[in-house]
Amino acid sequence: MKEQKLTTANYKGTRDFFPDQMKLRNYLFSVMKQVVRSYGYEEYDGPMIESLDLYRAKTGEEIVGKQIYNFIDKGGREVAIRPEMTPTVARMVASKLRELPRPIRWFSIPNLWRYEQPGHGRLREHWQLNVDLFGVNHHRAELEILSLACDILFAFGAPRTSFRVKVSHRALLDEFFLNGLNLKPEQAQEVSKILDKKNKITQDEYKAMVSKSIPGDSEAVTKIDSFLSAKIETLSTIPGIKEETLKIISDLFSDLSEMGLGDMVDFDPSVVRGFDYYTGFIFEIFDTSPENRRSLYGGGRYDNLIGLFSNEELSGTGFGLGDVTLQNFLQTHGLLPNLGNENTVFIPLLDDAFFLKAQSLAGKFRSGSVGVDLSLQSQKMGKQLSYAEKKGYRWILLLGEDELRDNTVTLKDMLNRTQEVCSWEQALQKVKEVIVS
Amino acid sequence: MKEQKLTTANYKGTRDFFPDQMKLRNYLFSVMKQVVRSYGYEEYDGPMIESLDLYRAKTGEEIVGKQIYNFIDKGGREVAIRPEMTPTVARMVASKLRELPRPIRWFSIPNLWRYEQPGHGRLREHWQLNVDLFGVNHHRAELEILSLACDILFAFGAPRTSFRVKVSHRALLDEFFLNGLNLKPEQAQEVSKILDKKNKITQDEYKAMVSKSIPGDSEAVTKIDSFLSAKIETLSTIPGIKEETLKIISDLFSDLSEMGLGDMVDFDPSVVRGFDYYTGFIFEIFDTSPENRRSLYGGGRYDNLIGLFSNEELSGTGFGLGDVTLQNFLQTHGLLPNLGNENTVFIPLLDDAFFLKAQSLAGKFRSGSVGVDLSLQSQKMGKQLSYAEKKGYRWILLLGEDELRDNTVTLKDMLNRTQEVCSWEQALQKVKEVIVS
Repeated sequence: MKEQKLTTANYKGTRDFFPDQMKLRNYLFSVMKQVVRSYGYEEYDGPMIESLDLYRAKTGEEIVGKQIYNFIDKGGREVAIRPEMTPTVARMVASKLRELPRPIRWFSIPNLWRYEQPGHGRLREHWQLNVDLFGVNHHRAELEILSLACDILFAFGAPRTSFRVKVSHRALLDEFFLNGLNLKPEQAQEVSKILDKKNKITQDEYKAMVSKSIPGDSEAVTKIDSFLSAKIETLSTIPGIKEETLKIISDLFSDLSEMGLGDMVDFDPSVVRGFDYYTGFIFEIFDTSPENRRSLYGGGRYDNLIGLFSNEELSGTGFGLGDVTLQNFLQTHGLLPNLGNENTVFIPLLDDAFFLKAQSLAGKFRSGSVGVDLSLQSQKMGKQLSYAEKKGYRWILLLGEDELRDNTVTLKDMLNRTQEVCSWEQALQKVKEVIVS
Repeated sequence: MKEQKLTTANYKGTRDFFPDQMKLRNYLFSVMKQVVRSYGYEEYDGPMIESLDLYRAKTGEEIVGKQIYNFIDKGGREVAIRPEMTPTVARMVASKLRELPRPIRWFSIPNLWRYEQPGHGRLREHWQLNVDLFGVNHHRAELEILSLACDILFAFGAPRTSFRVKVSHRALLDEFFLNGLNLKPEQAQEVSKILDKKNKITQDEYKAMVSKSIPGDSEAVTKIDSFLSAKIETLSTIPGIKEETLKIISDLFSDLSEMGLGDMVDFDPSVVRGFDYYTGFIFEIFDTSPENRRSLYGGGRYDNLIGLFSNEELSGTGFGLGDVTLQNFLQTHGLLPNLGNENTVFIPLLDDAFFLKAQSLAGKFRSGSVGVDLSLQSQKMGKQLSYAEKKGYRWILLLGEDELRDNTVTLKDMLNRTQEVCSWEQALQKVKEVIVS
């Protein structure tokens, strides 16, 4: 009877990161980390599993109901694999509220899980850069967060024309709905949810849903449309918007201009973020390429997030940037680099008797911070060189009888097709010079 | 009625990594990565969740029965959070068996989950460096893996006397049990399991269990004891051990001596690794400190691991090193470094009107790869300096009216208690010189 073999397929909606993919992931993370650290943000992490209660309160209904990975642990506790990082960071900050010097600047790149139908840019496991600034009750927090959000894409080589930031403020929607359209709070919430998914439904569906939610006002769709397309200059003509809110918005935009970000940022009242916890400015960054015209990432201000844990208030401003979205953006714009193995040196084994000497040569390079792939089985030279080529190694160190006798080595540079006999030390210096430069 | 607040406690057996702990974790990972990369190993990763079947076959019974985090996903699939990385790496390698150039040198630092009673060095979520070398049917694979395993601890500054490597071979136990003691295969397996937990039970319990498993042989305990304390020189006196096995072991030890690792490695037949998949050499590294005398990490050779997925054979040698165990070792030996914020520059805000200028100064430093924490709200100088001190910043850049007028900045070095007025460029160069050195 033939033995039944297991499938080598990974779990649906996840990715295996083979070395090539892992190099890319490490590259994406290291550029992101370098930029957020340059703003003084410190890295944190929490456990992959949290109590389900943590998500019930603030994470959107759709996620907790249909998309969360929850289960009962062997001790009978209701737990969940994190679908987002914000509840964890809120819990952690709340637990050390008195000790942490403020402002608190934190970031993390957790893996997050959602049970979704996998599709373009949508997976069950993805990684997300989370950046949060706590304790600043001033729009300078937004200035810093928006500047940082742009600098991340710039650091990947993104041209200024490749993306745009769209900014709105939660108060606008509230004031327009409650005071301008005179909706009841439940109606306002319903219509917000419709707007949030406006781009995913047809225009007719959209109109039908709005009319159903606001039965008394046949002009509602038209009024909402003119609100959604308002500019800063025309915002004062929208019914219900308070003077105070107009001022908050124009102050932010005038400072963004002075900071040199005026060309990157648009005011756009149609920005509606899905999570319930935003309370102030909200923003989304859009790819301008026609092939990938979608929201890359977004964030905003949330002023009550630790209210679940504490009676104290702490304001926060932050955003999340997913790795799949980022990778799609970089790919669309031809910004993904070639990440090879050219900094690793290969030492073929020409004779089993040379192994210990070769091991000692490898040790010298490794202590000199140069990676070495040392062949462990003697094989024909051609076979070993073909392995080195497949791996993309640039440097080869040959140890033959002559080299062993003279205490030298032959250094081959596969890129320039040159080779020379030199001392071990000279070979190390030669390789290090090229790697560093 | 008072609102019920959520607890800020994390899930039992896990850790919150606040920035100080995260810095330490990053330090541990970066040293480990630097060493394994210097041996030409490439990083990979797999998904956090796998099909439960993957673990049923080869992961030990105790883990799959009592310790695994398994559940049914929303699509009815039996899945598990990875309790170990070996099944994942075997699956991934098996899926690209024809494409991957051999040998395959891979590493990963996954987080792993086990439902355990949390205790010293035992948590429900921990990270583990996994190093694997596939495709080398020669004990030079063991030489490389053992040399790498030692180099990791050396890279953390561990003295040669702080740990020892104990090595055995799976064939010894099999040959001694089946040919020396004439046990049946089921008995041999039972006694192996008793030996594996020998250190966790009393001597009397141990004797009782052995007698029960080998009822016909009243000398069994004594015979086993003399096997367990055998040296390489006395191994030939142990009944049942084959010539071939003796030679394999003495060859490895003679090469280890020639490589300069003779003083680090002991032959010790009492080493028994828990996992069923080992087939050749097995090893464990022990802390020599009396305060922490326990196994730090271990590994060995497994020659049939991809057999679950494929009819082809591929030999592997590798080990796993947990972050909690490593950290305890470094702590015991006083090897944990101080990791501070001294490379970040602080810019206090002395007047709200100076903000945009301060932002521009921060931008200059950030583009020069120096991290800057820019104050976003003007406060009294004393309060801002006290924040900088709490955060451990060494450098402070002061922008007052004089500096703004002259386009200069005052650079304060809090370590040397000096300060000087200079141009922005000079200040940047000064800080960079110190950070790099």
